[in-house]
Amino acid sequence: MKAVTRRSLHQSEPGRCNPVRWATLSDVESPLVAVLGGGQLGRMLGLAAIPLGVRCRFLDPVDGAPAAAVGPLVVGPLGDPGALDAVAAGADVVTYEWEGVPAEGAARLAAGCPVRPGPDALAVAQDRLAEKTAFRRLGIGVPEFAAVDDRAGLEAAIDAVGAPAILKTRRGGYDGKGQFVLQSAADADAAFAALGGEPLILEAMVPFDRELSVIAARGLDGEVRCFPLVDNAHRDGILRVSRAPAPGLHDALQAQGEAIAHRLLDDLDYVGVLTVELFDAAGTLLANEIAPRVHNSGHWTIEGAETSQFEQHLRAVLGWPLGSPAARGHAAMCNAIGALPPRDAVLAVAGARLHDYGKAPRPGRKVGHVTVVADSPDALDERLARLLTIAPGTLG
Amino acid sequence: MKAVTRRSLHQSEPGRCNPVRWATLSDVESPLVAVLGGGQLGRMLGLAAIPLGVRCRFLDPVDGAPAAAVGPLVVGPLGDPGALDAVAAGADVVTYEWEGVPAEGAARLAAGCPVRPGPDALAVAQDRLAEKTAFRRLGIGVPEFAAVDDRAGLEAAIDAVGAPAILKTRRGGYDGKGQFVLQSAADADAAFAALGGEPLILEAMVPFDRELSVIAARGLDGEVRCFPLVDNAHRDGILRVSRAPAPGLHDALQAQGEAIAHRLLDDLDYVGVLTVELFDAAGTLLANEIAPRVHNSGHWTIEGAETSQFEQHLRAVLGWPLGSPAARGHAAMCNAIGALPPRDAVLAVAGARLHDYGKAPRPGRKVGHVTVVADSPDALDERLARLLTIAPGTLG
Repeated sequence: MKAVTRRSLHQSEPGRCNPVRWATLSDVESPLVAVLGGGQLGRMLGLAAIPLGVRCRFLDPVDGAPAAAVGPLVVGPLGDPGALDAVAAGADVVTYEWEGVPAEGAARLAAGCPVRPGPDALAVAQDRLAEKTAFRRLGIGVPEFAAVDDRAGLEAAIDAVGAPAILKTRRGGYDGKGQFVLQSAADADAAFAALGGEPLILEAMVPFDRELSVIAARGLDGEVRCFPLVDNAHRDGILRVSRAPAPGLHDALQAQGEAIAHRLLDDLDYVGVLTVELFDAAGTLLANEIAPRVHNSGHWTIEGAETSQFEQHLRAVLGWPLGSPAARGHAAMCNAIGALPPRDAVLAVAGARLHDYGKAPRPGRKVGHVTVVADSPDALDERLARLLTIAPGTLG
Repeated sequence: MKAVTRRSLHQSEPGRCNPVRWATLSDVESPLVAVLGGGQLGRMLGLAAIPLGVRCRFLDPVDGAPAAAVGPLVVGPLGDPGALDAVAAGADVVTYEWEGVPAEGAARLAAGCPVRPGPDALAVAQDRLAEKTAFRRLGIGVPEFAAVDDRAGLEAAIDAVGAPAILKTRRGGYDGKGQFVLQSAADADAAFAALGGEPLILEAMVPFDRELSVIAARGLDGEVRCFPLVDNAHRDGILRVSRAPAPGLHDALQAQGEAIAHRLLDDLDYVGVLTVELFDAAGTLLANEIAPRVHNSGHWTIEGAETSQFEQHLRAVLGWPLGSPAARGHAAMCNAIGALPPRDAVLAVAGARLHDYGKAPRPGRKVGHVTVVADSPDALDERLARLLTIAPGTLG
């Protein structure tokens, strides 16, 4: 760590993306991370950054976005060159907490400053066809899929993929939006009426036992570390409850998940945290989609792992050593959807930790989460059961 | 939780200490805690507050004090009426992170707003004679002591207390400052020359095996919860390494520590976290001193307990349910004194978490700490040993 005097900090050249240092009381190196997006993921990145002596500056279109509690917020569109320049000014590295960031904007910044993960990974994650093509190319199991560019293409895709199947927009969908389930070819008209007009992909609906995810990180030196696989329960297309390590997780399954993450991370020359959503089909893992960022199914790591996914991401993008991803006991995370549950009831559950995102209540909106930890799966079950009775329909 | 519209928030009456709500995106109750002092304890209180949906506003004489990273900072003297009014304006509760806060200032604020813990507890903790008199009155074991008001009084005190003994200022000393060790009565002149002129206390030096502390919380409803006892190793009068639960801790010793804390908390009608420093003399606990606040020997609770001392203090002063103080595995905390250790070396130790306070390096100054956790005492020993080799003299 290079010590500099306080005066010299103020005299640092303000050149964009030069590694200037903040004038802090510590008079020591305090890296600046520019984060594109300022939602709850940014807020939790910022909370992890402060104890590490790292500063985060955020860009978000919404004034008072959740990350504003933990660092300066530039308010502006994520694709606006002026706003992007403003958030990246003087940053040591640029990263993002939302994969909807326009890849061109990230690529433009990358000309002057490290952008991690790189814009190429962002582009792959933004296009379901590119994503699934990558899975196939890398030998990663994936449900059958076919591109759909027009109405005739949908017929051909149904022939190739079979039914039931899900028609999805190639770009922009999340939390179950931009999707249409076809039970048979007879649903083609309705599906095309709902989603036609933009590039689509038809994906086979495969039988699976449960949904899992692997949160993995790759450092600047290429080292890869994976958290224990997570079991994810969805309702109405939105993640409700994650459990980690996934119940019944064994070494072979963990190794299968890690191999998938490792191949993707290396192929994308990725730096940072990557999430791969998986289907567990009778012990065989199929890749569903990736998120080039910290992820809702990794929130449990704040309390449940030796290093949180947020700290891990910061370590990776700053070129620091990765932390231990080992679990600490057993954890479950419940999203609060639409509104926060009654605070006193949550806080009365032993081992429960409330995470309020500071967002306005709105139907279907993630406004917070609660993580509960325990020493054993049985103790976790008991605590989780108590949590799930507090506000049915809202929490979990 | 009462939902209010965003507009009504802006129209809230700005009356001092009315429970007005912040205009946040959440449009829900977001309590405001005014914290007197903005050092590292304030910074960690603020980090605990944000996920709870709680806002902290700090008062500190130093611009850019550590807590400025996590909330608005009013810069001014802690005894200044205008500064106190500014930090307390609109707060739901006033608390402090430094026991040097002038008790009169806290008492003045208490006329208009809850101040927790109350000014009476602060006054007791600020005066070693009042503190030790309270121990004795409550039947809590304490080394012999005597007030020293002048040179003649020192002779009388040595007669009563014996030697070796420590002469201390009754007010204002911390981290070994304001103390003089008398090996025998022959040192009286030197001791009085060093410290005479202000109210003093002479305390017997008793043989003890180790120094422990108990971090306890009392809720608004009088409920008391205690963290597992902590083993504290000092050097040059400054805490270097804490281990929790204290090695070899058994139920009877824990019960002894809890009984001491409980008696003090009830007697002081205390609300919040209180720390009692203890001597372990062959299994009998003697009280050394109290701190009416979160404490350096409780930093391990961030990673090592089901609820951190910071969250516990916020829960207590806000009248919320107290959290579980149970340990999660085994933890050790090492202070970084004078300068931070090399970051990469710390981050390479599994289970280690860095806490950078954002303070300028200075000999003898606490600028950060590192907590390391493990599943067993042996694994903790191994990890702690690695940490202690990184920067001898600075870390631990």
